[in-house]
Amino acid sequence: MNIRQIRNATLVIDYGGKRFLTDPWFGPKGDFPGFDGTPNSHLRNPTVDLPVPIDELLGVDAVILTHVHPDHWDDHAARALPKDIPFFVQHAGDREIIRAAGFTDVRVLTGNPVFDGVKIIKTPGQHGSDECVTAIYDLLGEVCGLVLRHPSEPTLYLAGDTVFNDYVEANLRSFSPDVIVLNCCDAQVTGLGSIIMNKEDVREVYRLAPHARIVASHMEAVNHATLTRAALRGFLTEHGMTDRVLVPEDGETCVL
Amino acid sequence: MNIRQIRNATLVIDYGGKRFLTDPWFGPKGDFPGFDGTPNSHLRNPTVDLPVPIDELLGVDAVILTHVHPDHWDDHAARALPKDIPFFVQHAGDREIIRAAGFTDVRVLTGNPVFDGVKIIKTPGQHGSDECVTAIYDLLGEVCGLVLRHPSEPTLYLAGDTVFNDYVEANLRSFSPDVIVLNCCDAQVTGLGSIIMNKEDVREVYRLAPHARIVASHMEAVNHATLTRAALRGFLTEHGMTDRVLVPEDGETCVL
Repeated sequence: MNIRQIRNATLVIDYGGKRFLTDPWFGPKGDFPGFDGTPNSHLRNPTVDLPVPIDELLGVDAVILTHVHPDHWDDHAARALPKDIPFFVQHAGDREIIRAAGFTDVRVLTGNPVFDGVKIIKTPGQHGSDECVTAIYDLLGEVCGLVLRHPSEPTLYLAGDTVFNDYVEANLRSFSPDVIVLNCCDAQVTGLGSIIMNKEDVREVYRLAPHARIVASHMEAVNHATLTRAALRGFLTEHGMTDRVLVPEDGETCVL
Repeated sequence: MNIRQIRNATLVIDYGGKRFLTDPWFGPKGDFPGFDGTPNSHLRNPTVDLPVPIDELLGVDAVILTHVHPDHWDDHAARALPKDIPFFVQHAGDREIIRAAGFTDVRVLTGNPVFDGVKIIKTPGQHGSDECVTAIYDLLGEVCGLVLRHPSEPTLYLAGDTVFNDYVEANLRSFSPDVIVLNCCDAQVTGLGSIIMNKEDVREVYRLAPHARIVASHMEAVNHATLTRAALRGFLTEHGMTDRVLVPEDGETCVL
């Protein structure tokens, strides 16, 4: 399995002989304003450019979208991707959105479909603490994570845009993943705390999955991120976690 | 805690000093045709009448709806219930449906809200096997279960319209419920198997939750049910499970 960190949650994953593109956010640096009510909202998003030309991201077998937030999916991606590509989404609501963008082969992850031998399991997550999501549900909405399984591959778990919580702990127990991708830039909403994982959440996952390798993703691309790669690396060193946690730069491939 | 079995998944639950009504399906016997493509589709639904006058079901503090299938929610309930009652639903899509029916205080379970001291946790489930849900997602859709918690109460888990699967197993581990409500009439879709729990699923839950009491619900009310209360009771006796599994009749209250 290879996981290439592109930018934010956009990954190219080679798994079970297939190539998957996750959460395609293709806009240029500064494409839209920072999110209101979040740290550093004066910064525009994305805060960095894509590390590769968009053309390099189009030769994939399928797209998987964990949710439709604007840092995971945008018009630039909608325009660039082939309209007949198999496109997996979390539920009927997102299917409607992707179909409306012109895609003709949109499949729902509920039911844990198999794509050319790769089993794609939908996993629960939550885009903030209970207090946070209850307070601003209309902004945070529904999200999912993924588990990929194939007879010739280690098990891969992408937690998606979730904080560490009972759902994540249950997924770790249920699927015993060998490789785990965590979205962990500690993006925050002012007054409501983290809406994806922070460094302590990474430590919890590290502790609960003592044999898994962890890939830190969704770093240094959005205005409301509060944890840099450098700060995370410092934390990993401080806590003796560098043996199993990778922090790839944008454009870097993790061979796993 | 008291759980009164009304009919199908309609329950009145006294918990933490509050009274909850779940999945209010109020139509009279024979209100609509049997489900196409299911066993005994010549029978009309519901197959039995409500055991109590509708008026007896209206004095509750809140409604919780696990999903909007027509054997869980109907126009009769929409007309009868007070429009300002706190009404909990699984996600924004169902919120739209309930708001369109005139309800003014519709709350989403995502974020695991607290209602007057009762924590309501949304739990994942799946309305059939992977093969079944992948094949007929547009019919089966999204569902949820619930966990109720209160400092002075045992933990209650309502699995909802789900088969036994990794999600249910994870919920049992995460929440260690003391009381579990299972929808277990083994409703089936022809050629695609069970879409809620069957007797073997009940046995799996019994085995995995060795200290919990289990209430069998969603029995003998829909055309596609294939497991009767009598058959379930026979199975429980055969397998030595009568000590912890209750099979209430419609109208009967379980004091737990």
